[in-house]
Amino acid sequence: MIQSEVQDQVISRDELFHQWEGHRKLTRRTLEAFPEKELFTFSIGGMRPYAELIKEMLSMSEAGIEGLVSDKWHEVKEGDHFGETEYAARKQYLLDRWDALTERIAERWHLIPEGRFQEMTLAFGQYNDKGYRLLLYFIDNEIHHRGQGYVYLRALGIEPPPFWDRP
Amino acid sequence: MIQSEVQDQVISRDELFHQWEGHRKLTRRTLEAFPEKELFTFSIGGMRPYAELIKEMLSMSEAGIEGLVSDKWHEVKEGDHFGETEYAARKQYLLDRWDALTERIAERWHLIPEGRFQEMTLAFGQYNDKGYRLLLYFIDNEIHHRGQGYVYLRALGIEPPPFWDRP
Repeated sequence: MIQSEVQDQVISRDELFHQWEGHRKLTRRTLEAFPEKELFTFSIGGMRPYAELIKEMLSMSEAGIEGLVSDKWHEVKEGDHFGETEYAARKQYLLDRWDALTERIAERWHLIPEGRFQEMTLAFGQYNDKGYRLLLYFIDNEIHHRGQGYVYLRALGIEPPPFWDRP
Repeated sequence: MIQSEVQDQVISRDELFHQWEGHRKLTRRTLEAFPEKELFTFSIGGMRPYAELIKEMLSMSEAGIEGLVSDKWHEVKEGDHFGETEYAARKQYLLDRWDALTERIAERWHLIPEGRFQEMTLAFGQYNDKGYRLLLYFIDNEIHHRGQGYVYLRALGIEPPPFWDRP
């Protein structure tokens, strides 16, 4: 464990928000880049199709923003058993749900109480960690699974959106 | 652009260090998990083998810690054209270089000057951004490429190390 003597601010709340927002924009572009059918059916090495990874990200971030604001950590029910729905409509559903959450995060961010990021917080009844670690887990998990989506796209012969382009 | 009224500390310098360190440990375990030959030869969809992704991470982080400390941003020369070297020795070279850098980052971290993370910094003569954004780019790029390594491992029938295990 190193201990630095300098204790300056490294990143502000608003900067952390924009970091998350930038990653969410890139993940949305990656979702858009998938052909409708392959989004739900294509996978490598027994992994989940990209749509399932997107649902995990949605579920985690939907519950996550609510938890950070209110300290109520309810798992979000997937609620999207598509049945016989056409792939195009399913993809649109995921895009719409993504956009709704992006708006919700922007609206709710300033309601995260002062101190939450440095407080120990029991998330989902089982993860006891500081608020910033929980949030970085949501973001890092998204980057991780999006990177996997990039491999799926390449394997399908599709150029993924540039990784560095996160305004 | 949202503007929060609350300006509390969200993450300290030392916490940011441990965040980076935790990811580097997981990336090392992912490197270890690869069979020696496939580390250098296996790829999907025309992408680079995992060894090349590791070299990119090494190069970026070796130059990156130096740049954050001294504001001198020299690209690190790859310097590892293996020629006819055996795969086992090449893998060991990457692991050793990884470990040396891990030590170096731990030694140098406290030398990053106060204010660097919030200063605009011109990295590598072309990326003009705040210090924290540069560092998060190094980390996020590592998570992104490591996620791709997970797909390679799964495609090879190998279980990757658990993503959540980053002490």
